[in-house]
Amino acid sequence: MIIIGEKINATRKSIAAAIVARDAATIIKVAQEQVAAGAAYLDVNGGDPRPGAEVENMKWLVELVQANTAAPLCIDSASPEAMETGLKLAKGKPIVNSISLEKERLEKFLPVVARHECMIIGLCMADGGAPTGPNDRLDRAGKLIEQFKSVGRGVEDVIIDPCFFPVSAQPGDGVAVLEAIRQIRKAFPGVHVGGGLSNVSYGLPGRKYVNLAMVSLAVYHGMDVALIDPGTPGMVPAVLATEAISGADEWCMNYVTASRQGKLP
Amino acid sequence: MIIIGEKINATRKSIAAAIVARDAATIIKVAQEQVAAGAAYLDVNGGDPRPGAEVENMKWLVELVQANTAAPLCIDSASPEAMETGLKLAKGKPIVNSISLEKERLEKFLPVVARHECMIIGLCMADGGAPTGPNDRLDRAGKLIEQFKSVGRGVEDVIIDPCFFPVSAQPGDGVAVLEAIRQIRKAFPGVHVGGGLSNVSYGLPGRKYVNLAMVSLAVYHGMDVALIDPGTPGMVPAVLATEAISGADEWCMNYVTASRQGKLP
Repeated sequence: MIIIGEKINATRKSIAAAIVARDAATIIKVAQEQVAAGAAYLDVNGGDPRPGAEVENMKWLVELVQANTAAPLCIDSASPEAMETGLKLAKGKPIVNSISLEKERLEKFLPVVARHECMIIGLCMADGGAPTGPNDRLDRAGKLIEQFKSVGRGVEDVIIDPCFFPVSAQPGDGVAVLEAIRQIRKAFPGVHVGGGLSNVSYGLPGRKYVNLAMVSLAVYHGMDVALIDPGTPGMVPAVLATEAISGADEWCMNYVTASRQGKLP
Repeated sequence: MIIIGEKINATRKSIAAAIVARDAATIIKVAQEQVAAGAAYLDVNGGDPRPGAEVENMKWLVELVQANTAAPLCIDSASPEAMETGLKLAKGKPIVNSISLEKERLEKFLPVVARHECMIIGLCMADGGAPTGPNDRLDRAGKLIEQFKSVGRGVEDVIIDPCFFPVSAQPGDGVAVLEAIRQIRKAFPGVHVGGGLSNVSYGLPGRKYVNLAMVSLAVYHGMDVALIDPGTPGMVPAVLATEAISGADEWCMNYVTASRQGKLP
């Protein structure tokens, strides 16, 4: 399981404020806390409505986070320029978050990722709209893999995000996305599947319980990359416990080790 | 979902002591707390190594719990005499916990349940030993349903317990039991499936996380009866959240109602 810490994202008010104020201490704290809680990668998103600001934000964030943690980054932007800035500065092999099948986005981003060594999150969105069942997600996963293959990437560098939607608004989509995870893993051996799933609880009370249940269900169905807040109580334990139950963690060795390391409080 | 509160069980030291001492206050407290936390039924087990004591314990427990809560009971005993005593005194329609295919047990218990209005937990154990995969669980479920049919019970009065084993000792059994739940529900429409699942975490550290993940996975696969401690933090919310995700709770109405009732702290 690859856990990507989701918190350094300008859609969060406190993070946006810290970015605008160049408040390094706040960003460093959030970065280090996520790594301590179990994040293997750190997402960085410096989205900003001011013209040109996002490129500068990305530069600042990438350099700041890399100077203060050893975690590789997940470069998160809707701007090809900010994305390229992040990829140029990123050490090791970052993850790109994300590229969809929407024609305009695809044409802008594909040349950028082609120029850099990286893993790519392929989002099952297309110009036709959001996916509605497991079949169109599977179909779109195949098309995303083809697109990334055209710029020299094998499935092992691809993370398919099946699109998690609010279960309160779309009854049946919980089952659809879980089935899609299983089918995508089966149809494309070696591909990764995952993404941000806290969207499933949007509009509901007690969101943490829905997110925790969804993490267990998604991991059981084959999700191996999770864009989450690893500091949420019970979140990392839910991932580890589900791997123990599903047999992905044979003889529960990883679970027992995590306990010894104090990760199961 | 039917939640059976598991705590009034003489295999727990504090409960055994309370039973021996006829400490009514302790039993009443545990009973009322479980109902407040979400138990629809209360399990009562008065197991006792002293000859004849279990029948007296059962009588005391059933009368005490019924005088102090409105919850119907789950009469839990390995003694046919104690079972019959409990069934005679139980108000409403109790649950019997449990009857397996083991020949000696079956011959002793089947005449007892035949004489009383009750639901029956049918445990997938047989003289051949513990089940090892989904197929033998499905096969045993069919045989249990046949046995209960022979004493006039329809599937709607049967709860198949697929046998949850420690995942640390039997890798692969987590997946097997979950598949069995799905197959049993599909093969015998109307039958209930469930049981005590805290056994899955036996031998592991951080047991609560394994139990919480297993509850979500089992509910998703079709478990509709859970013998649990509803007071475990996050346990009832995990059940409700999973029903919201799986579509069993359409439009999440039950989840939202539970939140309004303060059940999602």
